[in-house]
Amino acid sequence: MSEKQGVKIVTIGGGSSYTPELMEGFINRYDELPIREIWLVDIEDGKEKLEIVGTMAQRMWDASGHDVKVHLTLDRREALKDADFVTTQFRVGLLNARIKDERIPFSYGMLGQETNGAGGIFKAFRTIPVILNIVEDMKELCPNAWLINFTNPSGMVTEAVMKYGQWDKVIGLCNVPVGAMLKEPATIGKELDDLTYKFAGLNHFHWHRVWDENGDEVTQDIIEAMYKDDVDAGIPANIHDMPFFKEQLVEMGMIPCGYHRYYYRQEEMLAHGIEEYNTIGTRGQQVKKTEEELFELYKDPNLNYKPEQLTKRGGAHYSDAACETIASIYANKNSHIVVTTKNNGAVPDLPADCAVEVSAMIGKTGAKAIAFGPLKPAEKGWLQVMKNMEHCVQEAAVTGDYGKALQAFILNPQIPSGQSAKNVLDELLIAHKKYLPQFADKIAELEAAGVTVKDPVVQDLIAQGL
Amino acid sequence: MSEKQGVKIVTIGGGSSYTPELMEGFINRYDELPIREIWLVDIEDGKEKLEIVGTMAQRMWDASGHDVKVHLTLDRREALKDADFVTTQFRVGLLNARIKDERIPFSYGMLGQETNGAGGIFKAFRTIPVILNIVEDMKELCPNAWLINFTNPSGMVTEAVMKYGQWDKVIGLCNVPVGAMLKEPATIGKELDDLTYKFAGLNHFHWHRVWDENGDEVTQDIIEAMYKDDVDAGIPANIHDMPFFKEQLVEMGMIPCGYHRYYYRQEEMLAHGIEEYNTIGTRGQQVKKTEEELFELYKDPNLNYKPEQLTKRGGAHYSDAACETIASIYANKNSHIVVTTKNNGAVPDLPADCAVEVSAMIGKTGAKAIAFGPLKPAEKGWLQVMKNMEHCVQEAAVTGDYGKALQAFILNPQIPSGQSAKNVLDELLIAHKKYLPQFADKIAELEAAGVTVKDPVVQDLIAQGL
Amino acid sequence: MSEKQGVKIVTIGGGSSYTPELMEGFINRYDELPIREIWLVDIEDGKEKLEIVGTMAQRMWDASGHDVKVHLTLDRREALKDADFVTTQFRVGLLNARIKDERIPFSYGMLGQETNGAGGIFKAFRTIPVILNIVEDMKELCPNAWLINFTNPSGMVTEAVMKYGQWDKVIGLCNVPVGAMLKEPATIGKELDDLTYKFAGLNHFHWHRVWDENGDEVTQDIIEAMYKDDVDAGIPANIHDMPFFKEQLVEMGMIPCGYHRYYYRQEEMLAHGIEEYNTIGTRGQQVKKTEEELFELYKDPNLNYKPEQLTKRGGAHYSDAACETIASIYANKNSHIVVTTKNNGAVPDLPADCAVEVSAMIGKTGAKAIAFGPLKPAEKGWLQVMKNMEHCVQEAAVTGDYGKALQAFILNPQIPSGQSAKNVLDELLIAHKKYLPQFADKIAELEAAGVTVKDPVVQDLIAQGL
Amino acid sequence: MSEKQGVKIVTIGGGSSYTPELMEGFINRYDELPIREIWLVDIEDGKEKLEIVGTMAQRMWDASGHDVKVHLTLDRREALKDADFVTTQFRVGLLNARIKDERIPFSYGMLGQETNGAGGIFKAFRTIPVILNIVEDMKELCPNAWLINFTNPSGMVTEAVMKYGQWDKVIGLCNVPVGAMLKEPATIGKELDDLTYKFAGLNHFHWHRVWDENGDEVTQDIIEAMYKDDVDAGIPANIHDMPFFKEQLVEMGMIPCGYHRYYYRQEEMLAHGIEEYNTIGTRGQQVKKTEEELFELYKDPNLNYKPEQLTKRGGAHYSDAACETIASIYANKNSHIVVTTKNNGAVPDLPADCAVEVSAMIGKTGAKAIAFGPLKPAEKGWLQVMKNMEHCVQEAAVTGDYGKALQAFILNPQIPSGQSAKNVLDELLIAHKKYLPQFADKIAELEAAGVTVKDPVVQDLIAQGL
Repeated sequence: MSEKQGVKIVTIGGGSSYTPELMEGFINRYDELPIREIWLVDIEDGKEKLEIVGTMAQRMWDASGHDVKVHLTLDRREALKDADFVTTQFRVGLLNARIKDERIPFSYGMLGQETNGAGGIFKAFRTIPVILNIVEDMKELCPNAWLINFTNPSGMVTEAVMKYGQWDKVIGLCNVPVGAMLKEPATIGKELDDLTYKFAGLNHFHWHRVWDENGDEVTQDIIEAMYKDDVDAGIPANIHDMPFFKEQLVEMGMIPCGYHRYYYRQEEMLAHGIEEYNTIGTRGQQVKKTEEELFELYKDPNLNYKPEQLTKRGGAHYSDAACETIASIYANKNSHIVVTTKNNGAVPDLPADCAVEVSAMIGKTGAKAIAFGPLKPAEKGWLQVMKNMEHCVQEAAVTGDYGKALQAFILNPQIPSGQSAKNVLDELLIAHKKYLPQFADKIAELEAAGVTVKDPVVQDLIAQGL
Repeated sequence: MSEKQGVKIVTIGGGSSYTPELMEGFINRYDELPIREIWLVDIEDGKEKLEIVGTMAQRMWDASGHDVKVHLTLDRREALKDADFVTTQFRVGLLNARIKDERIPFSYGMLGQETNGAGGIFKAFRTIPVILNIVEDMKELCPNAWLINFTNPSGMVTEAVMKYGQWDKVIGLCNVPVGAMLKEPATIGKELDDLTYKFAGLNHFHWHRVWDENGDEVTQDIIEAMYKDDVDAGIPANIHDMPFFKEQLVEMGMIPCGYHRYYYRQEEMLAHGIEEYNTIGTRGQQVKKTEEELFELYKDPNLNYKPEQLTKRGGAHYSDAACETIASIYANKNSHIVVTTKNNGAVPDLPADCAVEVSAMIGKTGAKAIAFGPLKPAEKGWLQVMKNMEHCVQEAAVTGDYGKALQAFILNPQIPSGQSAKNVLDELLIAHKKYLPQFADKIAELEAAGVTVKDPVVQDLIAQGL
Repeated sequence: MSEKQGVKIVTIGGGSSYTPELMEGFINRYDELPIREIWLVDIEDGKEKLEIVGTMAQRMWDASGHDVKVHLTLDRREALKDADFVTTQFRVGLLNARIKDERIPFSYGMLGQETNGAGGIFKAFRTIPVILNIVEDMKELCPNAWLINFTNPSGMVTEAVMKYGQWDKVIGLCNVPVGAMLKEPATIGKELDDLTYKFAGLNHFHWHRVWDENGDEVTQDIIEAMYKDDVDAGIPANIHDMPFFKEQLVEMGMIPCGYHRYYYRQEEMLAHGIEEYNTIGTRGQQVKKTEEELFELYKDPNLNYKPEQLTKRGGAHYSDAACETIASIYANKNSHIVVTTKNNGAVPDLPADCAVEVSAMIGKTGAKAIAFGPLKPAEKGWLQVMKNMEHCVQEAAVTGDYGKALQAFILNPQIPSGQSAKNVLDELLIAHKKYLPQFADKIAELEAAGVTVKDPVVQDLIAQGL
Repeated sequence: MSEKQGVKIVTIGGGSSYTPELMEGFINRYDELPIREIWLVDIEDGKEKLEIVGTMAQRMWDASGHDVKVHLTLDRREALKDADFVTTQFRVGLLNARIKDERIPFSYGMLGQETNGAGGIFKAFRTIPVILNIVEDMKELCPNAWLINFTNPSGMVTEAVMKYGQWDKVIGLCNVPVGAMLKEPATIGKELDDLTYKFAGLNHFHWHRVWDENGDEVTQDIIEAMYKDDVDAGIPANIHDMPFFKEQLVEMGMIPCGYHRYYYRQEEMLAHGIEEYNTIGTRGQQVKKTEEELFELYKDPNLNYKPEQLTKRGGAHYSDAACETIASIYANKNSHIVVTTKNNGAVPDLPADCAVEVSAMIGKTGAKAIAFGPLKPAEKGWLQVMKNMEHCVQEAAVTGDYGKALQAFILNPQIPSGQSAKNVLDELLIAHKKYLPQFADKIAELEAAGVTVKDPVVQDLIAQGL
């Protein structure tokens, strides 16, 4: 990258409601990350949002006093030319796709969790072909750029970039570890700077251990503290706050991430989800409303800072993690950030060439993963089943093989196997037809056999061509 | 072993209704396995059954014309002295324990499968301490004997013998592969002798591939045949006959064992189990009736052969597999038998020092496992989660650590995690109190907290002191 | 293969002096392996030998009373058409190449061992491109045939067929285990049939353990017996009989193969080789004379059986192993044969996808490798260094990369690293120029730099255009 | 550790000539590492040196203006009480032992390299039992202390502490990486701060790769630069400067450490060593003279700083690395230091539980190893053979098993196997009798068999009771 002229950042999915957080992160780090220009890229369907949020982004920069130009475009290739950093936060099919991902499983009484569950599987099916196209463009237009991915399912998408895209300069991000590190220290009367954190696992499926300023492990102390009253241990806002069984955590000697609730307290998470499904709507439906409100705010020509309301969304810290990662690469800061990167042995219970989410020091060469060492049986079993599930998903995403998709569904621990699971798979294929060209033959076969979506909300979306 | 004087066989749990099949197997192989004496060992509670079945066993031998003495004893150490082969078919807590294992999970709407599910976990908790005691006796009394285990969960019990008992001369058996090999060849118009089978996985959790007389793989042909009408592909009688999804089998290119239904068609297996639970009673209750009928038959002083009714039980072929294994060791036959043995790399997706169930050639040195090679992602994921679940179970069984038991429950793919699962765990601890000394402290704590069993049938058993 | 019409065998390098042993092996197994026709293929340079030995081969079959036609051809593709089994025993560059392989290293005072040493590396460089061509022909002309390789270095050549040729129906053979199994039992007063052998390692670099008729290990007894006077423990005739250090064998608890002398007694093997080099000539030169004598014998129109003199060559049993392997595949005999095959975990200290030499049961599906389990540190270290050396050799053989060739030389434990080793590498490239098109650029560079061969015998061969 | 009262450092082998460098390192870091007291411990034989160097150490501190007390003692247990950091730089048998380690191999024409060669093996035999005793004392007297080992062979000694001593708070150090990082940047016109280094391997047997300030790899640039005239690439002073073959380095794409010369240029290193052996004496003899000169200097009551002459010894930077490591732990600096620590997957070609030497970030929790990823075949082969050789050495060191010692010798790539190697082993056992109680029986057997040392210098040392 050319330091003299400043850094060129490209954000694919620039019309996202998260963009103001991203802008704020860049503005706060301008001294160490001298940005020259930012290109916000989106597709035709997102044009209106792109203009609203893009105009606001320019207002934020103008208010900052830094001379940074925010370009808005629907031409991805124009934007990518000579980029230094490409961040991806796009959502194929927009929030309507998420609503389908969630509602169809719930209509059969099962979880449709949008990152590692049935919803996440279909998000991967829609996203992986698109990101592989982006990578092909990058090879041509900005071969030295770093790809900072925070499109979910971040782990699978990042692994696909490395494995099927053969692109090594990629880092996958997650906001969950940030949340834990912000909240936990106070539970044992410490500051974050006093503590040493080590994370390992997969995206939305990691654990961590913690040591104090004397080098003594305090993981069990934090576990103890988590079960005292009124303690906030950093569970993301988008996850129902259902406590883990204390005996389990004490035995594992590690702290699971918030998303482990879907695996360790499946019964309760399902019940909670079903209740929302039947009343206020699924998370995607709630987020859609929040987003609409945010875009109303963003239209205000006087708003030139990130509004408080954005912080309340589940994805808080995501963009901040992205900015810190980019600044750490650019300025060789060697910051400790938890990222998805190539394993290389850091998690020895998984193959060396797969992607893992681990504590890493981020600098000029990207992520230097800290070797975490072997896990105990329970966590090892969980980790291995999830990684192999991810491999099934990726294979299905790139081949369009229905059998592999079915295998992913059957293996996924959130999905009880059987005819209902197969129905969910089939209905999701139908519902996402527009974004799943690789499965076209199978979808045609299902349609010919008369498969239709049962959930009325999803039926409506389909009827509207969404 | 002293060949001149013939072979001494000891059967722990000799009062089992399976004993006549075992006797028949030995009688049929007398030419290659010249038995001198058989010791049937049981405990006080099984004394009556032991006498009935033992007397009948002697009648069978007398009718065979071979001079073999069947000894009946409650003194295990007397029996073990100088044994050549020790077979284990005991059931700690008898069929009543199985009924508890099954009914308590069903009372919470979940599967209690008695080998790898919640029931199997508790069977392991009851059995592992006992088999480790048997191994200690063997070290002292018959240090050169082979231990042929067919007490379930056969895989975990066998691994515990190797790992915690430090006893290498052990082979675990399973009847499931025998059933598949007897039925499948006909589905593609072949004889078993024409085909080459390779099995790999874990006990009640293996897959196999098949080749024809030209060395060409016919696994997909068998899969095709399985979906034609009226085909009997060898599903054990004790497993509800719910077909696998064909697309899944085609993708994996392997044939799963019957027990995979609990993982691949969980919804339907659960529904079927719940129906039986609510009507005719669980499998354990059904077997209990069958057993009572069998013992009535066995009392007949004229019965000196294995009655047809025994064949209909789920465990058919088990004893035959045991006899063939013993004969293969004794006569160095190098027969192909599917057994649980030390991995040593045969299933490279699992650690070399764990136990696996694989195709092996059985001879003087025990089992020579055939290297199967790596599995594809879905099967690899399943295998690794199950083996790690087994490791949690074994650790809990030997330590009595409640956290480890809870981890095993949460990791087990048959058990939906959450409060109900924890309740099932707690009630099973209470219900099996008599046979779980290692968990005594936790059980006392649960009792003090007022935990009680909800299922009325199990309540009755407990009230009767069973 | 078409059983009705009998089996078609093709032997590449059919003009070899070993061919009569091969014929004898086939004649002895005619009942289980009904051969229809045998095609002996050779190249223009081997035409005379092919005719001599081919005519004799036909005499042997005629004398046997079986109606088998021996075809002689220089047209490999004609021969391969519809073959059932293809055996390879060719030697690129004939024995003159072996003489170069041996003499150039000795001229610098180092071993040039023709299978795993410097000579073996160059034999691999010459052979791998040729065998990959053969495989391409087979894919087209006999896609169902088995390739039975006994061209050395058998392990590397076989692995190259699997890995770079993507041909799975291949088995590599070695005569060394046969020799050990024939001689060792008598050292402890046993018959081979009493004993169970388990071999594991690499070609010309394996170890074995042995058990008796009671299943008790007798490896240490054989080790003890090996150090008694006048014991013949089956060292191949072509290996100088230098005893291993007894303390080493006792510690390892395994019996190394004869070729381990080059690694465990390097000093003495080198001294012995240097002495022969300076007096009677290297092994290759000796074999060349033996071969000339054999071909004189073969010319005798009355000779219709394998002459005694052939047995004395180092490669005895090689062809017999090949015949037994072919018969075991054809008749599904499940014979125990030690072969090079895909690891699949049988030797867990090496990657699952590489080739290993192990005890296997040979049948319709080829080799079923017996899982041997992990090795102790010393043997593990040896095995890993040798396998990685083999990988360097194979990479250099297919790419012609000089740096990789140099890495193989430096890593090879028989070759002391330094300038002399590099000189040996360079001179061997020059000396084998004709057969190393992949290294053409480097050879031209060396010639331009004035590199020449120093050994006078090799100079003579080059001067003669050999 | 109690921060208020300052840090207590204990140095075992405090009478070493390196102690002034250690003192200088501590003095320079006093601001971040507030030392309260330093205990220099030695044994009776080292008493005189301890007093000389200890007195000088106190002078250095006094001159620094910091109030630090240097205690001198022969009572290790008194010193260890409540220590915060224990550094080990002792040499069992002093330099005379090193002279024996070197001269006996040379007397048979082979290398006796004092860290990984024959000499290193015996240094491990002498050192491991002693360090395990120190660890036992530490468990009792300072259970929270960190052990910073720079006694050679540092890798094996550190691994023994972790594995046989079951002590995890240990870090092994090496000066070699420091030297490379100081010299290399200039060869490509860079500053060290511009570059990112990643090291991996074993002690005195590692490789590294380098990236520039843009994140682009510059390893090949450094390799190119190394072959220009007059370039100083940081080879330690104690290693004969024999260049690697450029083609080898280009192929591996990594830079080996200086000690790799003993493996990659064995011929020349041996020739050089033999020449010194026959003329100026081995390295140990040279160092002995240097040390005597140093101690003469140290006696000067006016010398209160590290003299220039010390820098010229081979071990320069060792003590500095130790001080930086201690300061990084104490002040949680997260400095990048290359250390021996538990692998945990950082070098995935080796077991997760062994010790490796890798780039690590050093802080309160000790070393956080950076995952390096898999190596290519040649380096993988070298690494695996060396690690397994190390395992043989450690097993022999703790058991005194002669067969294991012999296996280590035969496997060691620096030692040509055969009778001479065995003679070297036997003579070294005799020569070091006093320090090898674990081999007492074997030594007695060798003495009874009349084994004696041939080298006259070593004979003299033995005659003097040294």
